[in-house]
Amino acid sequence: MNTVDLNADLGEGFGSWAMGDDNALLDVVTSANVACGFHAGDPSIMRAVCRRAADRDVAIGAHVGYADKPGFGRRFIDIEPAALRDEVIYQIAALDAFARIAGSEVRYVKPHGALYNTIGHHEEQAAAVVGAIADYDRTLPVLGLPGATWLRLAEEAGLTVVHEAFADRAYTPEGTLVSRRLPGSVLHDGSEIARRCVAMATGAPIADVEGGELKLQPGSICVHGDTPGAVQIAQQVRQSLWDAGVELTPFAA
Amino acid sequence: MNTVDLNADLGEGFGSWAMGDDNALLDVVTSANVACGFHAGDPSIMRAVCRRAADRDVAIGAHVGYADKPGFGRRFIDIEPAALRDEVIYQIAALDAFARIAGSEVRYVKPHGALYNTIGHHEEQAAAVVGAIADYDRTLPVLGLPGATWLRLAEEAGLTVVHEAFADRAYTPEGTLVSRRLPGSVLHDGSEIARRCVAMATGAPIADVEGGELKLQPGSICVHGDTPGAVQIAQQVRQSLWDAGVELTPFAA
Amino acid sequence: MNTVDLNADLGEGFGSWAMGDDNALLDVVTSANVACGFHAGDPSIMRAVCRRAADRDVAIGAHVGYADKPGFGRRFIDIEPAALRDEVIYQIAALDAFARIAGSEVRYVKPHGALYNTIGHHEEQAAAVVGAIADYDRTLPVLGLPGATWLRLAEEAGLTVVHEAFADRAYTPEGTLVSRRLPGSVLHDGSEIARRCVAMATGAPIADVEGGELKLQPGSICVHGDTPGAVQIAQQVRQSLWDAGVELTPFAA
Amino acid sequence: MNTVDLNADLGEGFGSWAMGDDNALLDVVTSANVACGFHAGDPSIMRAVCRRAADRDVAIGAHVGYADKPGFGRRFIDIEPAALRDEVIYQIAALDAFARIAGSEVRYVKPHGALYNTIGHHEEQAAAVVGAIADYDRTLPVLGLPGATWLRLAEEAGLTVVHEAFADRAYTPEGTLVSRRLPGSVLHDGSEIARRCVAMATGAPIADVEGGELKLQPGSICVHGDTPGAVQIAQQVRQSLWDAGVELTPFAA
Repeated sequence: MNTVDLNADLGEGFGSWAMGDDNALLDVVTSANVACGFHAGDPSIMRAVCRRAADRDVAIGAHVGYADKPGFGRRFIDIEPAALRDEVIYQIAALDAFARIAGSEVRYVKPHGALYNTIGHHEEQAAAVVGAIADYDRTLPVLGLPGATWLRLAEEAGLTVVHEAFADRAYTPEGTLVSRRLPGSVLHDGSEIARRCVAMATGAPIADVEGGELKLQPGSICVHGDTPGAVQIAQQVRQSLWDAGVELTPFAA
Repeated sequence: MNTVDLNADLGEGFGSWAMGDDNALLDVVTSANVACGFHAGDPSIMRAVCRRAADRDVAIGAHVGYADKPGFGRRFIDIEPAALRDEVIYQIAALDAFARIAGSEVRYVKPHGALYNTIGHHEEQAAAVVGAIADYDRTLPVLGLPGATWLRLAEEAGLTVVHEAFADRAYTPEGTLVSRRLPGSVLHDGSEIARRCVAMATGAPIADVEGGELKLQPGSICVHGDTPGAVQIAQQVRQSLWDAGVELTPFAA
Repeated sequence: MNTVDLNADLGEGFGSWAMGDDNALLDVVTSANVACGFHAGDPSIMRAVCRRAADRDVAIGAHVGYADKPGFGRRFIDIEPAALRDEVIYQIAALDAFARIAGSEVRYVKPHGALYNTIGHHEEQAAAVVGAIADYDRTLPVLGLPGATWLRLAEEAGLTVVHEAFADRAYTPEGTLVSRRLPGSVLHDGSEIARRCVAMATGAPIADVEGGELKLQPGSICVHGDTPGAVQIAQQVRQSLWDAGVELTPFAA
Repeated sequence: MNTVDLNADLGEGFGSWAMGDDNALLDVVTSANVACGFHAGDPSIMRAVCRRAADRDVAIGAHVGYADKPGFGRRFIDIEPAALRDEVIYQIAALDAFARIAGSEVRYVKPHGALYNTIGHHEEQAAAVVGAIADYDRTLPVLGLPGATWLRLAEEAGLTVVHEAFADRAYTPEGTLVSRRLPGSVLHDGSEIARRCVAMATGAPIADVEGGELKLQPGSICVHGDTPGAVQIAQQVRQSLWDAGVELTPFAA
């Protein structure tokens, strides 16, 4: 039987400010990337999201980011690697406490925003993030994009590496993401997105940006939930997977 | 054989800003109240202090405080109890990660500054702090002032309560601290302070503010280290305890 | 001809987080209480709101608050008065720059949330806020609740004091607000709220909470905009004032 | 008669954390680069430094930086140019308020740390800083390193550009700073530093790093004060200038 994991970013509010529809998304995904209070989230939001995720058997992942609420973690910061390493440890540990209080635990780590992008190529910061995870718990899987520098380092460090695909992004024939600056890089049609997700989950090819066939076999598919339309598409993805007999289950048990 | 624990606040720098002489103090105390990044400290300072404390067999305590770096945690904040509870969990968990990486773990909790004072009498915030510790780890002892509301609640919640005395503060005949607003409330003579500590550690009485005899048998004695003079006094206290044959050992093993 | 001013809180987003519908509100009010980056808002939001307010001839007021984004400025902070004074100056000055760049200037000061409530009775903090305004610009009017301590001090300091009424709050026969803890303290019926605003603006009495007649003659009426329903009510208030021939004009020109 | 300006960074404490010896430096320099609360400083520190600077006729400059207290403004942040522009306006305006309350005003702008370095070459951020100053007050001079991108843009925008030299840095024959990564890039001998400053102030050449003669005629010389040794050197510089009959006077009156 085919199985797949859906992941999305959750817990991205801050104090009185809301973002996204966490409750709706928690009924869609099997893995929740939970903000840890540095780029978004705060202790009470973290606690509430962990509680609801645990109640639904949704796996809790640490969505670690730069300390940057004004920029929502979307700005590269040239932080010293040792300082970054310790900030990542701090975030994972804090989230883990709320996950454990909810009867679960942090099951994986997926960096957020500019940090995610930076450690795709920045050796020192990549090593810092990998070092943080190794320091905290060597058994924690990491979730990222195939080809990323930090995943290579994670593998070398003996961590479990899981690859993700993006439900709504176009791919090159080589299996890399089409740059957001190019037209057609982001898909908007829910039915098409859902069909591609079913293909990925059942071992069938999807169409790459040049019309060729591309076989992606991700350990997890990333969906979005930061707009009302995005939540609807995510729901459509889940329904299509269900209809196709694909079992939705967390990649990290 | 008489034993006693000395505790002091450590890790109170922030980024490029230093405070106190952590290294000197770590050679004096047996328990380190380590700031957790909310009122002072940051992830890399926390890591470094935990490492050095563990290397010297100094017990690591979570010095939790209000989220208030501008005010150094010395300003009462009328935060909702549930939010405070979650902030305290967040802080303990983060520090615990660094303590564990150093081969130790958080061994007790002692609130800082305005939070320490507030939960001496404020029922809701006191319950929030106790709830946080119970949520995180019911086996963690708490360190505070005899008579404090939060210690009563901690006892009722089944936590281990340890009382501290202040090396450099005058006491009333009833065993409470003389208000800082009154003259003579704070002692400055190192020899006198050291003599009082030896008395407390050996079961002998000290002089209360009215000249009577007062027997304090604290589980820990708090010394200060935020000024050069304070460090010297702390060193004198340690030497006098040593000369009197008192063994210095952490109250929380 | 009768005139009245409507004021509301604006610019309360932060970075990627939105709050309220600033554009809709700017078509309703004549005075905008603009957050200054301490409890909400950030430099770019402040600039954008000032620009749009100036374009519509809406007066810009400094909505100063405690430095408390996690609590949205709704938590009392026991800050030293001199520090509070300087924080208030900092906020007014920063907002004034953006107002001036937009061709306007800060025309009044209205504190936010817990600060507004605290300086209704807390002498030291009230004096700090008044001192800040006197330091920055003695000609700036202040907007607040009749009977507030800070308005008494402002008057004594020679500042111009303007009283506001709340469109959606019940009043006692003495003209004070019915506590939010009591049933009926907040009105929800748009038509009733609009009728009361017309009464206030035309010198007619409104019904107090005991059914008696109460004549309020506020210099400004505060409306809310933090929910879609609230914006609709605010629009209804404006329309009713218009229909009654009341001219809407900023109290501070 | 020869005249020269000495500038140094001041007001770099934060809350309870001190940095440098502001009082000693204020007796040395004629221009104070005052931190504005983003990378260091806070409203009360800004007020106090402005007061003391004004009392000594020391010119007040806005030492604007990235919003980065954890990194003391020494980390490049890839912030959107419009957001940076507005953050710089916010900082200048806030400082200007305290300068005016002290009877002075902000007389120039000198960016700090990573921002200073970045806008030496980063066109977009350079334009943002220049745009901020042009928005706030076109008559404000800017102080920076010859050859910096932002100074070129400032000149094009019609701002007054002033060049500074560093008292304790080695120079290449081309008049650029020797990289800090190379040996001998930073001078430590107070007498040599003082001699070089006298040379710069009197139109005489200094030795470049290769032994040749280099004539720098800076509008201001930057001295440091973040260590006790640095303050002594700065005092030595001032004394030597005095002995050489050079008048110390702010470049921006």
